[in-house]
Amino acid sequence: MASIVSTGMSKFGNDSRKLMDHLLEASAGIVEQFRDTIDYVVLSTPYTLAFNGASGISSAFTSISGLVDVPYMSVENTSASGSSAILAARSMIESGQADHVLVVGGEKMNSYPTRTVSRIIATLLAKEEASAGLTLPSVAAFTAKEYINRYACPRESIANVAVQNHHNGSLNPLAHFQKEIPMEKVMESRVIADPLRLFEFCPISDGAAALFVVKDDLAESFTKNPINVLSAESSSDTSYLSMRSSFIDIPSIRSASVKAFRKAALKPEDIDVVELHDMASILEIVELEEMGIFPRGHAWEMIDSGYTALNGELPVNTGGGLISRGHPLGATGIAQAVEIAEQLSCKAQGRQVKNHDVGLSLNMAGYGNNANVIIYGVS
Amino acid sequence: MASIVSTGMSKFGNDSRKLMDHLLEASAGIVEQFRDTIDYVVLSTPYTLAFNGASGISSAFTSISGLVDVPYMSVENTSASGSSAILAARSMIESGQADHVLVVGGEKMNSYPTRTVSRIIATLLAKEEASAGLTLPSVAAFTAKEYINRYACPRESIANVAVQNHHNGSLNPLAHFQKEIPMEKVMESRVIADPLRLFEFCPISDGAAALFVVKDDLAESFTKNPINVLSAESSSDTSYLSMRSSFIDIPSIRSASVKAFRKAALKPEDIDVVELHDMASILEIVELEEMGIFPRGHAWEMIDSGYTALNGELPVNTGGGLISRGHPLGATGIAQAVEIAEQLSCKAQGRQVKNHDVGLSLNMAGYGNNANVIIYGVS
Repeated sequence: MASIVSTGMSKFGNDSRKLMDHLLEASAGIVEQFRDTIDYVVLSTPYTLAFNGASGISSAFTSISGLVDVPYMSVENTSASGSSAILAARSMIESGQADHVLVVGGEKMNSYPTRTVSRIIATLLAKEEASAGLTLPSVAAFTAKEYINRYACPRESIANVAVQNHHNGSLNPLAHFQKEIPMEKVMESRVIADPLRLFEFCPISDGAAALFVVKDDLAESFTKNPINVLSAESSSDTSYLSMRSSFIDIPSIRSASVKAFRKAALKPEDIDVVELHDMASILEIVELEEMGIFPRGHAWEMIDSGYTALNGELPVNTGGGLISRGHPLGATGIAQAVEIAEQLSCKAQGRQVKNHDVGLSLNMAGYGNNANVIIYGVS
Repeated sequence: MASIVSTGMSKFGNDSRKLMDHLLEASAGIVEQFRDTIDYVVLSTPYTLAFNGASGISSAFTSISGLVDVPYMSVENTSASGSSAILAARSMIESGQADHVLVVGGEKMNSYPTRTVSRIIATLLAKEEASAGLTLPSVAAFTAKEYINRYACPRESIANVAVQNHHNGSLNPLAHFQKEIPMEKVMESRVIADPLRLFEFCPISDGAAALFVVKDDLAESFTKNPINVLSAESSSDTSYLSMRSSFIDIPSIRSASVKAFRKAALKPEDIDVVELHDMASILEIVELEEMGIFPRGHAWEMIDSGYTALNGELPVNTGGGLISRGHPLGATGIAQAVEIAEQLSCKAQGRQVKNHDVGLSLNMAGYGNNANVIIYGVS
């Protein structure tokens, strides 16, 4: 089994730092303390060729970090690259290829105007559909309309996800946004894809996150509070969104969740804290249902009731989620694991949740083109 | 242990086909026969964002191939991405994450003029060095000069690598070039980086290659001749070429080879057939020495003697190497494994070698920024 024994994160946001600055900042604590122990590096910087005109970042990163003769590779799986890097690291450890893996992921997206950034992200869509004008925000908007119609969900209940995640982010000193955004402000913000508005989407963020993952029987020598990866599963769906039966069904999330719960021998009700892929507000609702945490059509009521709030029964996106922490593509899956590890080891300070034995993260590529679900437990 | 039970390759070259056409062509035999068995896909198309303006190719590939709900990831390690994908697949199998992994890698490089292609490849160099004018061909030229001076190696003995690899490629129906290039023609060809000339470099190629890799105890149900991955090791060096003590020392190759021989419990003299990373002629010479196959300063004499020829004691680059088969970046490491597997299972037809129990492939990222060495054996 693989255990997380140390974590790191750069301040997410939009500033003048370069991708390498973020990667080094996120990993500095781990590298300084464990440089001679690290025996594999897995990187996740999937869009760096497009955003930063660089390739072979894993080579540059290990060189600059002074990691001598350490093997490495980079993993690409669009917006789920970070969690795929965790899955790869876990396989390295469980196969005996490595015992001490540094996982680092990041993205510097604010290198071009929004228009160019959107065009780069759209390279993950099926070409025929992208050239027909499809964008990820527009799919989120279709999903919201379908959900509202089918389940008589009030419009404000969708926006409430953004209110809650911005609240959580206001307590996370590394989040991109650290400000409360009240309901009126969400509902008055600019329409991005009708009915969804600006504050309901993740921003364009720069940032990096890092994990030090080791073989579980070595974990005790690094920390008193190792976080075990109980299961880490992946499922996929067609990349042709027009071939999906409905936008509120995301079968890859359902399938990966079923596998992850089964392999961890746990049920949804065993989970204490969740990080999920709220690229847009509506996705938090749909994902909670697809993971089997709430019944279909009811997640919005549970969110409205405070069940998923920081002090609720099952806090969700305690770090602010993609909406408030930000979504540097290569970092997100790793930042989710950082947040879960901090919660489970009681280091989340102002946003610490009360129950913290078992955590779950969901990271999604494209619009459910694939989904990675990881379940974490204290040992 | 992981075993290769099926292989595929598209015709390498420069034509109007798209990247996806190459990936589908290379994998068609495997997918048609084993579609329902494949439980993981590892892709290697590292430069597709730059060459083809696409990301998430693993999602598009599995969708178009009809691989339903199969998990996947892409691996990036510049010119060694293909072999890194094999290492990742092997870890998936040895960790129990997957039993039947389809590995596919390819590149469509002829989408831009040579000048642009060179600029894209140069993104793997350290930024400071690339902007000072360093290119991979120029480093190969420095290496050739240093080697000639230090070991009194005749200029023609370096060119002889190109003659031999073009000969081997002339017998490979899927090679980019399938024509004998005699010594005079090599030595009269255009100078690319003095003293090295056009026919001594790999061309700009499009192509893809595929492997079906399964857990060894399942291999017999797929083929009578499984090829076992006896070891697969990776080592790295600084990405700053100006910090290297000498260009004819490539420590990552030496380190990865030592580890791979040790883990396979084999010695260089046990190897029957080699595929190596002849991005330029001189590299074949230096790599044979760094792998410990020939003593320092003597590989050129061994090549001149016919020892590494198709009918020699230790045939090298029987498929034509990067120089003649071509070097579509994401495909190369996989194409090397395809060639070794064909040789070890006696399917290499006109270029079949006589001894074929143990094979070795060396795939290198950048100029030895890292090196992957894989040793293969018949079971």
